[in-house]
Amino acid sequence: MTTSWDDYLTEEDRAVLARGKWAMKSGLGKRPALLLIDCQYYMTGIRGAPDNAEKYPLACPTGFAATDHMMKLLAASREAAIPVIFTRFAVDPVVDDVGMFHRKIGAGIGRGENLYFTGTHGCEIVDDLKPLPGEIVLDKKKKSAFFGTPLLSLLIDRGVDTCIVVGGSTSNCVRATVVDCEQYNFFCAVPEEAVYDRVQITHRINLFDMNRSYADVMPVADVLAYLKGIGDAKKAA
Amino acid sequence: MTTSWDDYLTEEDRAVLARGKWAMKSGLGKRPALLLIDCQYYMTGIRGAPDNAEKYPLACPTGFAATDHMMKLLAASREAAIPVIFTRFAVDPVVDDVGMFHRKIGAGIGRGENLYFTGTHGCEIVDDLKPLPGEIVLDKKKKSAFFGTPLLSLLIDRGVDTCIVVGGSTSNCVRATVVDCEQYNFFCAVPEEAVYDRVQITHRINLFDMNRSYADVMPVADVLAYLKGIGDAKKAA
Amino acid sequence: MTTSWDDYLTEEDRAVLARGKWAMKSGLGKRPALLLIDCQYYMTGIRGAPDNAEKYPLACPTGFAATDHMMKLLAASREAAIPVIFTRFAVDPVVDDVGMFHRKIGAGIGRGENLYFTGTHGCEIVDDLKPLPGEIVLDKKKKSAFFGTPLLSLLIDRGVDTCIVVGGSTSNCVRATVVDCEQYNFFCAVPEEAVYDRVQITHRINLFDMNRSYADVMPVADVLAYLKGIGDAKKAA
Amino acid sequence: MTTSWDDYLTEEDRAVLARGKWAMKSGLGKRPALLLIDCQYYMTGIRGAPDNAEKYPLACPTGFAATDHMMKLLAASREAAIPVIFTRFAVDPVVDDVGMFHRKIGAGIGRGENLYFTGTHGCEIVDDLKPLPGEIVLDKKKKSAFFGTPLLSLLIDRGVDTCIVVGGSTSNCVRATVVDCEQYNFFCAVPEEAVYDRVQITHRINLFDMNRSYADVMPVADVLAYLKGIGDAKKAA
Repeated sequence: MTTSWDDYLTEEDRAVLARGKWAMKSGLGKRPALLLIDCQYYMTGIRGAPDNAEKYPLACPTGFAATDHMMKLLAASREAAIPVIFTRFAVDPVVDDVGMFHRKIGAGIGRGENLYFTGTHGCEIVDDLKPLPGEIVLDKKKKSAFFGTPLLSLLIDRGVDTCIVVGGSTSNCVRATVVDCEQYNFFCAVPEEAVYDRVQITHRINLFDMNRSYADVMPVADVLAYLKGIGDAKKAA
Repeated sequence: MTTSWDDYLTEEDRAVLARGKWAMKSGLGKRPALLLIDCQYYMTGIRGAPDNAEKYPLACPTGFAATDHMMKLLAASREAAIPVIFTRFAVDPVVDDVGMFHRKIGAGIGRGENLYFTGTHGCEIVDDLKPLPGEIVLDKKKKSAFFGTPLLSLLIDRGVDTCIVVGGSTSNCVRATVVDCEQYNFFCAVPEEAVYDRVQITHRINLFDMNRSYADVMPVADVLAYLKGIGDAKKAA
Repeated sequence: MTTSWDDYLTEEDRAVLARGKWAMKSGLGKRPALLLIDCQYYMTGIRGAPDNAEKYPLACPTGFAATDHMMKLLAASREAAIPVIFTRFAVDPVVDDVGMFHRKIGAGIGRGENLYFTGTHGCEIVDDLKPLPGEIVLDKKKKSAFFGTPLLSLLIDRGVDTCIVVGGSTSNCVRATVVDCEQYNFFCAVPEEAVYDRVQITHRINLFDMNRSYADVMPVADVLAYLKGIGDAKKAA
Repeated sequence: MTTSWDDYLTEEDRAVLARGKWAMKSGLGKRPALLLIDCQYYMTGIRGAPDNAEKYPLACPTGFAATDHMMKLLAASREAAIPVIFTRFAVDPVVDDVGMFHRKIGAGIGRGENLYFTGTHGCEIVDDLKPLPGEIVLDKKKKSAFFGTPLLSLLIDRGVDTCIVVGGSTSNCVRATVVDCEQYNFFCAVPEEAVYDRVQITHRINLFDMNRSYADVMPVADVLAYLKGIGDAKKAA
């Protein structure tokens, strides 16, 4: 399953990768946190609604398939009592506080309820993944969950050494967050079925990039087993 | 030419992109800087040598083709008297100062002259792009040119509002730098022929990603014209 | 007036400072922003109330004297149409999101209305300095206005080269913000009467430190004149 | 001893501090690192030389008294096998890479051997504290050891939760580093006799500020005992 990018690689590509010994498994640490990136209605639309494409200009068709996997990871993380942190892309409806974003991506220029503006439906986290009291929700203005937010200080305060990154989109906010995890030297797991994108080719190639240089891309089942191990070790201690 | 990713997109992908109004042109600002990312021998091997693949485990086959374009951009930037800043990936040969990197990418674990270790040939910037006295060279330990370096303060000090990002690799250090440009709200140009990668599919999809969300990917010729305009305006002032 | 620290210096101190040529005037730039740091009720209490000391455990006795000066600077900044940005120290009333803070400062451990918890009176910006629609309010968890907030990206987006820093306290959040201004290479003005602290000696010595290494400490009147010049230049253009 | 600022406080100051419960002891963590800030000849001059004041325009008279204490802490840190990281303020002798610094502090404008320029005597770490192979030396352009350097990633990679900060000056680089420690949520110890400044009043008031809000200021003897405990625990494990 973690070979979803294999079809795109040539023989020469494989030789290049072998030569550099890319895509080793880093393994994971002992004190993980779960980061749920931008699991908001503007990213998914309404589960099962036939007109999401029409009504939610930034919705990703595979958002709820990934959400199902996130629900399992969220439950397992709560069971293991690890830190759970949500991010929201939350833009001021009056002031321009996103700068370059609205110069590259036009969907939000006319505003609207089904987008990422603070106080609107589109900005809310989907009910399937509703944060519990005591779980932190960080609003952000940019792609990486670390950028312009208190995330890093929270992770250091909790003694976290490993980030499990889920949500969307694979090629934007998930990717930027995962790159920062590597830069700060956190171990990082990307459970493959729990991230999603609007465009399949970039979803797959970003998984390839992340697995090659930044994180261990792995099946959700493996992350669930890892979380069970973390929880069991806590109970034993 | 800036459509090198078009072949990979389906009709549905195009509809998704149109719906969200992705990939608008941001345009460029008035006070650019040229950032040359990791233009080092370990990234390219020796120009024309038949055995680069053998001797330089991380060399990108298209490195010197891109270098030719960088030479033009470097000359034009010097002519326009804009800030020119080089980065080097420079790893301590004794102490482990890269953390996660050597857990994901194995090429350097046995060290070696043709890699990125400080003081070795592989770490040096290629002669074709040799920095002049007064041009800043920043050593970095991670992907983004901004991460753990004084780059940001230098750009603010020089009043820069636009970064022209060239070098390699497209999917690692160029991408990470370009994402940070957007996050800090710098305008950003990626001259397409002046960036390079080891693997063609990821080169192209990262250009697609950058053009969609972060930067204006454009032909080198257009960036040269822009630089000429900047230089002419200075002379006229 | 900007010599309020003079009494504390010995002859030897003055010789040391002269030898190193400390405390030069940097001057100010052309595109300023006004930063109002933590102008919240928990920092000042209620104007004129006799029992502030009793009811507001973190109130600074000189808060409203400084607020009067801030009101003038705020009006002048609006008149000159420069960016105006407020910060609030806003702590989650349920989750621990401040880490080390509650290990060093005990006032808030039992929570309370007259402190810095989101949703309480103490957390609100004082009415005398009420933000207008379109003026940005950034919540922060730490001392520097730059730390874990989108401030830096906003300043770059608006092309700011100079920060005018007011509010409190001088020795904590103002100082930390001013140090970051220098580190990012923004010009920085500290209008002396518009910053305040709980303890006079540290107020004065922090002004001394800031003026020596980081910012131009100057009378409010000089900053008002500077702002008038900025506004006049805009109208003339 | 850690009451060196007591003389400066009024009764009212003490009441204010008691009311807010400032200056609690945070305690220290389990995985410390030693940070030696700018222990360079330009900061101290030559040990015992009668003409330091004349020849080293930025020298601090008490630099070598503090160095004696640092030597003990360095030996104890090596014995306890904790990470040891040095910083240097290292400025390019040709290019302007410090921005605002040379607008506020004039000593270096004419350059010179006894200052902080890369390649000069003044820039070198004092022999008494000479780094061993395998100990990291980070060059920086600004005050905080975290700013524009890879320090943070190194601390995370080593699993550090506590910084012991020594060196100089108390009111500039030590203070800025200690504030960042609190902001990132590292426990922080400042061994009082192992930090130094040019001006006594600011040395003391900065110790007061740090102890009040950011770090546990404590006698060197207590930090030595803490380090012995860390080392003993490792040997027992």
